[in-house]
Amino acid sequence: MTSATMIPITDVSACCTNVTRESISAENAELLARSLKALADPARLRLISMVAASEGAEACVCDLTEPLGLSQPTVSHHLKVLVEAGYLEREKRGTWAYYRLTPGSLDAVSSLLRTV
Amino acid sequence: MTSATMIPITDVSACCTNVTRESISAENAELLARSLKALADPARLRLISMVAASEGAEACVCDLTEPLGLSQPTVSHHLKVLVEAGYLEREKRGTWAYYRLTPGSLDAVSSLLRTV
Repeated sequence: MTSATMIPITDVSACCTNVTRESISAENAELLARSLKALADPARLRLISMVAASEGAEACVCDLTEPLGLSQPTVSHHLKVLVEAGYLEREKRGTWAYYRLTPGSLDAVSSLLRTV
Repeated sequence: MTSATMIPITDVSACCTNVTRESISAENAELLARSLKALADPARLRLISMVAASEGAEACVCDLTEPLGLSQPTVSHHLKVLVEAGYLEREKRGTWAYYRLTPGSLDAVSSLLRTV
């Protein structure tokens, strides 16, 4: 039973709203909010975008720090948040870590938003 | 000139990434992050969803408080954030405030995400 179906609609006075479909569940709202929080930062959006704009949708960490104008530890923190949220995948090759866009991850959150 | 075109690609050693298209500008990343921040909260996602699920995509504030299990001032705060971010429109009619989904607002942010 979702929150929408729990709205008391026995009072039919002018104040009350009729519900026409189910609204998002508390659990799904929690999950979607967590995914959105990971994205809701200008530096993280730019990092995702820079990775997506790179050849093969993959970028070396060595190329991501300078354009942002942030310190290397700050960029590493943002990249970690994006990996943990499932937007980026990280692979160490030799000296450098490479970041790749997780296929479909942005589309998934974008589609979920349309169903809210 | 965007951040992507500012990536130094003169060093062609194995570490470096080739850029294939422009990435999001710092200004647009800032704006999109602000829109996403307003959405990145479970209570606010549920409020939007409850309004969208109501007849005529409009709901009375009197029906929104109870299902969330939050205090009325907390719900009012969340509704204010959503109005300020442009997701909801507020109209006072008689005793009650009514909230309506701003047409296209969720679609807009969802489409923007696909262009990051």
